[in-house]
Amino acid sequence: MAGSEVTFGHPEGVNVGDTFDNYKQLNAEGVHRSNQGGISGTEHDGADSIVISHGYPDDVDLGDEIIYTGHGGQNKSGKQIKDQEMTRGNLALVRNQLEGIPVRVIRGPARNNPSAPISGYRYDGLYLVESHWHEIGSAGFRIWRYRLVRSEVGRENPPPAAIEPIGLNGGNESPRRATILVQRIVRDTKQAKEIKRKYRHRCQVCGTFIETEAGRYAEAAHIRPLGKPHNGPDKPQNILCLCPNHHVMFDLGVFSINDDFSLVGIPGRLTRGKWHDISVEHLRYHRKHFSADKRALTLGEE
Amino acid sequence: MAGSEVTFGHPEGVNVGDTFDNYKQLNAEGVHRSNQGGISGTEHDGADSIVISHGYPDDVDLGDEIIYTGHGGQNKSGKQIKDQEMTRGNLALVRNQLEGIPVRVIRGPARNNPSAPISGYRYDGLYLVESHWHEIGSAGFRIWRYRLVRSEVGRENPPPAAIEPIGLNGGNESPRRATILVQRIVRDTKQAKEIKRKYRHRCQVCGTFIETEAGRYAEAAHIRPLGKPHNGPDKPQNILCLCPNHHVMFDLGVFSINDDFSLVGIPGRLTRGKWHDISVEHLRYHRKHFSADKRALTLGEE
Repeated sequence: MAGSEVTFGHPEGVNVGDTFDNYKQLNAEGVHRSNQGGISGTEHDGADSIVISHGYPDDVDLGDEIIYTGHGGQNKSGKQIKDQEMTRGNLALVRNQLEGIPVRVIRGPARNNPSAPISGYRYDGLYLVESHWHEIGSAGFRIWRYRLVRSEVGRENPPPAAIEPIGLNGGNESPRRATILVQRIVRDTKQAKEIKRKYRHRCQVCGTFIETEAGRYAEAAHIRPLGKPHNGPDKPQNILCLCPNHHVMFDLGVFSINDDFSLVGIPGRLTRGKWHDISVEHLRYHRKHFSADKRALTLGEE
Repeated sequence: MAGSEVTFGHPEGVNVGDTFDNYKQLNAEGVHRSNQGGISGTEHDGADSIVISHGYPDDVDLGDEIIYTGHGGQNKSGKQIKDQEMTRGNLALVRNQLEGIPVRVIRGPARNNPSAPISGYRYDGLYLVESHWHEIGSAGFRIWRYRLVRSEVGRENPPPAAIEPIGLNGGNESPRRATILVQRIVRDTKQAKEIKRKYRHRCQVCGTFIETEAGRYAEAAHIRPLGKPHNGPDKPQNILCLCPNHHVMFDLGVFSINDDFSLVGIPGRLTRGKWHDISVEHLRYHRKHFSADKRALTLGEE
């Protein structure tokens, strides 16, 4: 809205679970600043709120976890008629991911969604953008996808175990503390450990390792991500040993890996142990869905 | 125990909240493999379980968050008589932090702890090791400290919102999914964003930045950590702009920063904008409590 600043987080005076009749009310209460559904926010600051309704047939709503579809490319009757671009709200949601900014989620009425309200628009609290990728949607065009995870137990829903009341002892010097609820993959630690140890914790892209008082540190990166909707396996064929920098870059699609282990997006080639049978199928999946590089969009196949 | 392998995660057939009479029972059920309290595990694999009891006067138990004291340096009557070393269980817990391995927490009876059971030993589920540091304990000797955060809603305590049942569609190829509850600091995004933008997302240690399709990525690192027990402020004087690699290294104490902005632990000097009035007090706090470098242990003052 013209003149109104983008405000992140819980709106003043609004509780998780509060329901509103229409967009005008959502707007007046600072829950959703747009007069229509979709993504509110800016490319520069990130998205402050989104509305989930029946607009996108590709959305998957699991309650605490949402596979959300970006906007654009639809005609007036809501039919997808072209590719979605990485601009406006779609870009804003990536900024949320990059900077860990929570987005308000509002659910509108949708008959086929058990998590949706029967009528009206319900404020369902804050979610974090865990990842984003692109795919060909049910209409045959490219759509951007975001995995959102619920970031807080609602104000009315305190966590079951006894915890300290929010608020620390340091007065205004101390930031607020909150309890967050995150969907997380239980990784097979043995597989990840094994891969990291075999590479002696050296990054397969740059050779870096981090030496600490308790031994070396590296990160196990899954090529095809674990969990819905990617369902990558937690097996050596799908695991790389990377430094934190290259892990972030790989997950964000800054680079991908070709079938011959040369890199796409950045120069170089993956170092690979002879024992390590990295899956070409999973490398292709990553190139196809995560690479931000146009060459990969063209060359990707699966 | 001799012959028994270190097993991480929930013990088979045991529920969160189950109570046991003694160590023998805990041992028999695979909850805690040691015949006494403290830390079970190895330096190589990490800690599989810990018992929190009244043994350490410096422990702080907030329920979902625990400030746990390492072991060693106590005489037979439990009095701290020398410094704790970064070995055995203390080192094992750092491995948990480095590899994201959850540790089982068992609470023993303790009159002054409202989170403890009145009698017996209660299995309270899995916690993650969020950070570690050293300080001078109440007895005047160095102790190692660990901030543990509850990593899962207990099996009997499903999260309040509707979520999909655990178990994905991919059969044995798909890892288990679980819901985890994490204590998290709500960071003042504006402050962090501002610092990162002023440095144009360049790491203040190495100058690296990560270019993504949605703009540059960097991380805001707090010199003196937010939250208990450090209570660092979320202000520019306490924030650095770092790449993920140097952020990990800084948080793990691989390097610290001197008053003149030269580095301790690794070669180099912090790049600093003239506008950025980094707090020398907070740099000292980090050197004193987080640095793994012996020079800093000697030179550190506050």
